[in-house]
Amino acid sequence: MRSHLCGLLDSSLIDHETTLCGWVQRRRDHGGVIFIDLRDHSGVVQIVCDPDRPATFAQAEQARSEYVLQVRGRVRYRPSGTENRDLSTGLIELLALELTILNPAEPPPFQLDDYHGDTSEEVRLRYRYLDLRRPEMQTRLRKRSLIVKTLRNYLDQHDFLEVETPILTRSTPEGARDYLVPSRVHPGEFYALPQSPQLFKQLLMMSGMDRYYQVARCFRDEDLRADRQPEFTQLDIEVSFLNEDALMTLMENMIRQVFDTVLEVRLPDPFPRLTYSEAMRRFGSDRPDLRIPLELIDVADLMQTVEFRVFAEPAANPNGRVVALRVPKGGELSRKAIDEYTQFVSIYGAKGLAYIKVNQWANNGRDGLQSPILKHLPDATINGIMARTGATDGDLIFFGADSASVVNEAMGALRVKLGRDLALFTDEWQPLWVIDFPMFEYDQDAKRWTALHHPFTAPKLDQLDRLETDPGSCLSRAYDMVLNGSEIGGGSIRIHRAEVQRRVFELLNISPEDAEDRFGFLLRALQYGCPPHGGIAFGIDRLVMLMTGSQSIREVMAFPKTQAASCPLTGAPSEVNETQLRELALRLRTRT
Amino acid sequence: MRSHLCGLLDSSLIDHETTLCGWVQRRRDHGGVIFIDLRDHSGVVQIVCDPDRPATFAQAEQARSEYVLQVRGRVRYRPSGTENRDLSTGLIELLALELTILNPAEPPPFQLDDYHGDTSEEVRLRYRYLDLRRPEMQTRLRKRSLIVKTLRNYLDQHDFLEVETPILTRSTPEGARDYLVPSRVHPGEFYALPQSPQLFKQLLMMSGMDRYYQVARCFRDEDLRADRQPEFTQLDIEVSFLNEDALMTLMENMIRQVFDTVLEVRLPDPFPRLTYSEAMRRFGSDRPDLRIPLELIDVADLMQTVEFRVFAEPAANPNGRVVALRVPKGGELSRKAIDEYTQFVSIYGAKGLAYIKVNQWANNGRDGLQSPILKHLPDATINGIMARTGATDGDLIFFGADSASVVNEAMGALRVKLGRDLALFTDEWQPLWVIDFPMFEYDQDAKRWTALHHPFTAPKLDQLDRLETDPGSCLSRAYDMVLNGSEIGGGSIRIHRAEVQRRVFELLNISPEDAEDRFGFLLRALQYGCPPHGGIAFGIDRLVMLMTGSQSIREVMAFPKTQAASCPLTGAPSEVNETQLRELALRLRTRT
Repeated sequence: MRSHLCGLLDSSLIDHETTLCGWVQRRRDHGGVIFIDLRDHSGVVQIVCDPDRPATFAQAEQARSEYVLQVRGRVRYRPSGTENRDLSTGLIELLALELTILNPAEPPPFQLDDYHGDTSEEVRLRYRYLDLRRPEMQTRLRKRSLIVKTLRNYLDQHDFLEVETPILTRSTPEGARDYLVPSRVHPGEFYALPQSPQLFKQLLMMSGMDRYYQVARCFRDEDLRADRQPEFTQLDIEVSFLNEDALMTLMENMIRQVFDTVLEVRLPDPFPRLTYSEAMRRFGSDRPDLRIPLELIDVADLMQTVEFRVFAEPAANPNGRVVALRVPKGGELSRKAIDEYTQFVSIYGAKGLAYIKVNQWANNGRDGLQSPILKHLPDATINGIMARTGATDGDLIFFGADSASVVNEAMGALRVKLGRDLALFTDEWQPLWVIDFPMFEYDQDAKRWTALHHPFTAPKLDQLDRLETDPGSCLSRAYDMVLNGSEIGGGSIRIHRAEVQRRVFELLNISPEDAEDRFGFLLRALQYGCPPHGGIAFGIDRLVMLMTGSQSIREVMAFPKTQAASCPLTGAPSEVNETQLRELALRLRTRT
Repeated sequence: MRSHLCGLLDSSLIDHETTLCGWVQRRRDHGGVIFIDLRDHSGVVQIVCDPDRPATFAQAEQARSEYVLQVRGRVRYRPSGTENRDLSTGLIELLALELTILNPAEPPPFQLDDYHGDTSEEVRLRYRYLDLRRPEMQTRLRKRSLIVKTLRNYLDQHDFLEVETPILTRSTPEGARDYLVPSRVHPGEFYALPQSPQLFKQLLMMSGMDRYYQVARCFRDEDLRADRQPEFTQLDIEVSFLNEDALMTLMENMIRQVFDTVLEVRLPDPFPRLTYSEAMRRFGSDRPDLRIPLELIDVADLMQTVEFRVFAEPAANPNGRVVALRVPKGGELSRKAIDEYTQFVSIYGAKGLAYIKVNQWANNGRDGLQSPILKHLPDATINGIMARTGATDGDLIFFGADSASVVNEAMGALRVKLGRDLALFTDEWQPLWVIDFPMFEYDQDAKRWTALHHPFTAPKLDQLDRLETDPGSCLSRAYDMVLNGSEIGGGSIRIHRAEVQRRVFELLNISPEDAEDRFGFLLRALQYGCPPHGGIAFGIDRLVMLMTGSQSIREVMAFPKTQAASCPLTGAPSEVNETQLRELALRLRTRT
């Protein structure tokens, strides 16, 4: 139906006849001539319809925004002085010889050609087919396709086999809530949609598949936050007979290749590696944004003897933590701004936010500092803080003092917020690996150990003997890939021996009966010759969001759900009829 | 953990040290030496452990079938006379210098190295991780991966964009039963799993995506037959601004490329095209297996006046059909065989199966024929039949006479069965397109028109005006790709104008209210500038099954379900607890 694409016409085609198909981006009447900007996925070109060709002109007169047209015409230079250098086709135009309206269009409910982000997301999603016509959205989805293609190419070149695993499966143990699918054939029984193909990919290793990958749809019925969706896409990877160093290198190379191909960005080689404990110590987070040049500095040793109990108590408590966070040029922060930060850290449970403004330290020493807490701190402590943080005149130092977990969360978040607010971070890509995670966390409420990753993560080989005696000190063979403060991938070497798997289940308070019931097939499979294996999974939506500079994963999915997990376009979810419920042996429960 | 793969060792590595990882395929003790066939996904190699190295030998003595080993050794030629020419590594062996048991294995429940297909499918699926270790299954899954990769590469090269569409969506209108997913956030409401991304891919065309594809998981809650699975994979394709000829050529080229790349088979160029009516006339089927050189030959005109009412009545009835099916060398069929075929056609509703054996026609004419029905047929009829079928001595002619639909089904199926039983068909690949399908079929029971494809299929442009006046004669712009008697792809140009879509809905007895309720979003989208578009979907499981010569799609899926839609490995579906049901506002219904 067409000979060329709109955005690809150029002066090499001068005097050629071409046929285009596309949408009316804009129509203008000027001096008795009609100008139409015709748009397809490749771009926009100017069509000129003059009254000398009455049939064509008459059709052009009817055309409105978003009408679908077919135009046969001759390419010519735009008159001198009317060129548009902002447009790839801006030097030429198409003189229409024949114009056909393929389909008319109602006036769109929001502007497509001059979009300012002022349309509610609900309306955008309801009319997603219009929203997706915008070049910005086209670019995002095209980049997503290219990113996934580049990932696939890399994996294909490295002998990975793509294998599809079931969507209708059994409840998996990732810990979030499963979506359930009632079975008609087995009344009262349900399939679960997978939170990840974790167990299947391990079974594929036991099947001798050697290197597996899948661009896998995953599902979690969780309360939605800004960056969550009921279904999401994961690049799922598993390999046999490879240790964590080799696997991490393979994966780093893949991500470097994607950035190189798609963004022409060279990521560092190798990625820096931080242990979990160092990441928590320096950044209060296991996914630190390394673009922000701020660090938490431990000062508990300086605070243990101060009179000020807010500092002294956590400083003396083995589970407490006291840190300083130096903010260069932070002295300019207003009282109001500091109040707002105090409010901000309270979200994370911090009971206050002490600070010292460094006004004239160089000349006036202690008298050049300004702080409500100054009176509580002896000289030695002050001197120690100033020396350790390296703060200079014009800076500000924030303090966090509480349990280690509150300090890490609150001050880690504050660090990121300050980085953004004060535009401290560089516009670079800062990937890293976080390694040496603890195997277990102690859940104070439930009074039991839980797995920091998942229960199939292998402990470090040399720590197997303290699994039971000192689980808190056991490190795992897990690794997370972090980019600019987001975890984009996470994985581990898995347990490949049934006996170790049983011990870990036991430690996690999963009884032998429960283990058999939920994971019996895995334990059995481990006994039939399971190779050493490990893997990783990358969040594709998150990765694409970062690589396209988008604010939400909804911006990089064609048909996302709202935060109420519904689709304004199709109306999903919706009611079903009694016959369907009856076939599934279900009855609705009236909530009280 | 390894330096090489087992199956890739060869004489270029003589005297080199290599490290391998793999599974014990077989262990033999011979003359005080232990021989181990070590297997990985690339193949098998012979390991030799001699008693000179006691530690290695001791480990080797413990090794049993399916143990996972790591072996460091030196490659050497096998002693003259002990080479194995059937094995890619058969000229060499690895002298073990160090052998480590990475994981022991229980004795497998069925033989992996010498498998005879005598294990029940239930057991194979329960221990799928063992079943998949068999080279035959490895080959199937690897070929599947290669087929999909080749399809993707072709589409990428032709500017198709891969876009993911939702799995949690609204009930779609493909006609089969949907799998439903209860919503926790919206109690009493359900998502449906897609039977295909049909409406989303049309919406993507309305979004200006131009060329879309997706390797899409689809779901149908149907009663399972040999070749059905609750979930299956479809290569889903849609394009804008392309007519059916251009699209069919593009798709043909893709399938030709896949066969060339994966099987080194050159398919015909172009594929033959048969109209629906010709396919039904000649083969009684809209997916004819062209490898079978048998055709149905209409003889109603010869039968209209015969006394024999079994023939005369359908011959005179406009909805009836009378056909002859010549079977070359069919004269050798025994009475018992003919009885069995009579039984066979009765499955399809045929009330009998008349036949004529051609014994000595050349010399004896009518007297050289043998048939219980001969006496009912006048000479002119006999002569006409013999001339039209071209039957010669030694042949047999079967007859079908009934309503056209019964004759087509029964004689079409008989044709295929005869082709297989008598090994008449060539071992070639016979693809074709079937085109010019009717838009509608009349459902005699429900007394209404139904869509032969789906309600979004466009009617031929020149037949729009008889949509209401003579729907039965309207042809659609649909096309099916058929290979060796299986439909591997089907699609159509879609309706792109709201007004035509409304008329088709009306004809299909979908009231305006019902249309609004079920497809309102589509009708709305059609009004905002929908481009002319069309597409196709290929059944990946079916295609891979054919290309790997497998007997069932379960053989080309890693983790298929049984015919009871359950997974013997994981135990899905399974019961869920009361809390989960309560969260979903559901109650189980006790069946009475």
